[in-house]
Amino acid sequence: MQKSRKPDQVLQRKRIIPPATKLVSLFGDYGSTEFVLRRGGHLRNVQIAYESWGELSLNQDNAVLIFTGLSPGAHACSSVEDPTPGWWEYMIGPGKPIDTNRFFVVCVNSLGGCFGSTGPSSINTETGKPYGLDFPELTIEDIAKAGHHALHELGIDHLHAVVGASMGGMTALAYALQYPDELDYLVSISSATRALPFTIAIRSLQREIVRNDPIWQSGFYKQEAEPVQGMLTARKLGLLSYRASEEWLQRFNRAKVPTERKQETAFGIEFEIESYLDYNARKFAEVFDANSYLYLSRAMDLFDVAEHGGTVNAGLARILAKRSLIIGVETDILFPIEQQIEIAEGLKKAGRAVDFHYLNSINGHDSFLIDKEHFSPVVEGFFQKTSIALESSSRDPYAN
Amino acid sequence: MQKSRKPDQVLQRKRIIPPATKLVSLFGDYGSTEFVLRRGGHLRNVQIAYESWGELSLNQDNAVLIFTGLSPGAHACSSVEDPTPGWWEYMIGPGKPIDTNRFFVVCVNSLGGCFGSTGPSSINTETGKPYGLDFPELTIEDIAKAGHHALHELGIDHLHAVVGASMGGMTALAYALQYPDELDYLVSISSATRALPFTIAIRSLQREIVRNDPIWQSGFYKQEAEPVQGMLTARKLGLLSYRASEEWLQRFNRAKVPTERKQETAFGIEFEIESYLDYNARKFAEVFDANSYLYLSRAMDLFDVAEHGGTVNAGLARILAKRSLIIGVETDILFPIEQQIEIAEGLKKAGRAVDFHYLNSINGHDSFLIDKEHFSPVVEGFFQKTSIALESSSRDPYAN
Repeated sequence: MQKSRKPDQVLQRKRIIPPATKLVSLFGDYGSTEFVLRRGGHLRNVQIAYESWGELSLNQDNAVLIFTGLSPGAHACSSVEDPTPGWWEYMIGPGKPIDTNRFFVVCVNSLGGCFGSTGPSSINTETGKPYGLDFPELTIEDIAKAGHHALHELGIDHLHAVVGASMGGMTALAYALQYPDELDYLVSISSATRALPFTIAIRSLQREIVRNDPIWQSGFYKQEAEPVQGMLTARKLGLLSYRASEEWLQRFNRAKVPTERKQETAFGIEFEIESYLDYNARKFAEVFDANSYLYLSRAMDLFDVAEHGGTVNAGLARILAKRSLIIGVETDILFPIEQQIEIAEGLKKAGRAVDFHYLNSINGHDSFLIDKEHFSPVVEGFFQKTSIALESSSRDPYAN
Repeated sequence: MQKSRKPDQVLQRKRIIPPATKLVSLFGDYGSTEFVLRRGGHLRNVQIAYESWGELSLNQDNAVLIFTGLSPGAHACSSVEDPTPGWWEYMIGPGKPIDTNRFFVVCVNSLGGCFGSTGPSSINTETGKPYGLDFPELTIEDIAKAGHHALHELGIDHLHAVVGASMGGMTALAYALQYPDELDYLVSISSATRALPFTIAIRSLQREIVRNDPIWQSGFYKQEAEPVQGMLTARKLGLLSYRASEEWLQRFNRAKVPTERKQETAFGIEFEIESYLDYNARKFAEVFDANSYLYLSRAMDLFDVAEHGGTVNAGLARILAKRSLIIGVETDILFPIEQQIEIAEGLKKAGRAVDFHYLNSINGHDSFLIDKEHFSPVVEGFFQKTSIALESSSRDPYAN
């Protein structure tokens, strides 16, 4: 072979907070600025980044809160201020399934994230340095609580709906568990009541790959030298779990990259599937903070609805949403369809109204980001149903 | 969190050639000591490590050749010389499914491996140093050819059967493709005619993890400092693909490790599934050569039966085995059942006799190593059938 390995292209960090993303400072617990976390840690001066679309109604009954998956920030959809497409552009907007002509939609960047909300890369005001691994242990419940408190700071005490997919779906469940009286409807897409061992293993390995990167420096790396190679490889493993083998068979099969794209490094890129993973993982590794990745990833492992009532079903029974939309995807290997059935069945057993949809999208766990064709009508139908309820129950008698 | 990461326990290399493993020097191509590889490279003074059990019959018609998966050496089963259990102990031996009272069974360590056969960690006699990445590009066909030549050196020109599982199954196919007239029966377990993109991606990532380890040194690491941490993490990803989520759900679910086994490193082992992966991957990382891993892993990506005839089915039609046993496992995500069906159907289309078995083992791709209950009767039945044929066709009229 006799190829020497060339150093990898240096990845430049480009972590930019999108222009329409705003910050809200949380008023903490116990009348202080202290935000207490579920596993005992605490944070001061927590800020949550968010974007919003549409107008809050007079009686404040049309707010929809969206929690994100692991990767994106608050820029879920475009606006006049920021016309670039958001991560769920097809789903949110005027006349879209989550219709901003009708709803006041807020998307928050998760606590622990790196797109404006307080996270491990934020400056710890007590030390003047980034938290790094001094950031306290994070849970999905804490992310839900931070979102909840952020909405309160924005003057919203009750939600029409909480919506989330993937980690965001777990967060939506955590919201409904912790604030059962403060929402009317729940949307959980490709989510889970708890992580299965296979999923824990995949995420644990992603973290190990990042931790193996010598530049990670036990979590106390400098902003000018982040463990990008570890993040790149870890993200490729993430992508493997987010998509489905059938999709890749159809798209790439065994196609090889043309000579000009073939890596000259030994055991470098030779197949199109390798090139695809590299291209897509690079986009993430260039912008995402490694410690945020570790904290959010572990938070998903730790989440367990059974902690809210003794068993999963007892936990689900605490959710009081008037109606829940539960969506699962056949090709999802990370949050498999059985876990969506578990949520739907658990809610039904507790006497709650559930719309359950089992979609045969080919894009695996990531289908909600891609498969507009299958997802749009289901989400649109659900919100049309909930808005009829909204209109009949809350019509302002003095209007017109 | 404030846990500093302790350095990982230093892994000691213990690459020991088992005591019953013998070496055979290959007589090369063109009447020289040169062994020419499929992709153009060449090797001199190739040695192949093997073990054998049972006695070769007078008319040399009872030889069974076993090719291994990626990980094991030639020690497939115990013997007087080496009573330690082999990697397929339940399958091979006196009175066992591959019955050494009846068959002369030979298992070879793959060319490119690190348990005695010539591989990247062997000394290149031309330089006096280990090959490292100077080892030529390796294919499954080369591994089959080295096994074939080794058997010829042992005086065996015709095989009763070639047997292999996983990479060994690919190698058995490659043997049958390259030497169609030199075997009577073929056994392919959880194998493939070619790697799917999902499988290529998993293996590509394992290689990337090894290559990320700074100790890998572009493949020219020293024997006293091998990239064990990279191998450890890579092997965990391997294990993820070898086993099945259902099995782990049953065995571990969300059990946490007891405090004394909890890693004090940040984001260290907390769940039993993480501990299981670490324990099992360590056993491999301690003994397996990193470059052997890279070469054998890439060889599986490159294998494609379609190279032997234009299409997969045209390739399969070149296999002339009198009867083939094809076994697949329902929970195998690495070499999925569809790929086993493809082999069986392809052989049938070409008019070959096929016994196809679809086993519902819970142990995923690794089932053949573990699930004696399902595998034993199938393999035993097949070899009973082939030995009846053997006895009726080759009975020595002067015996007794």
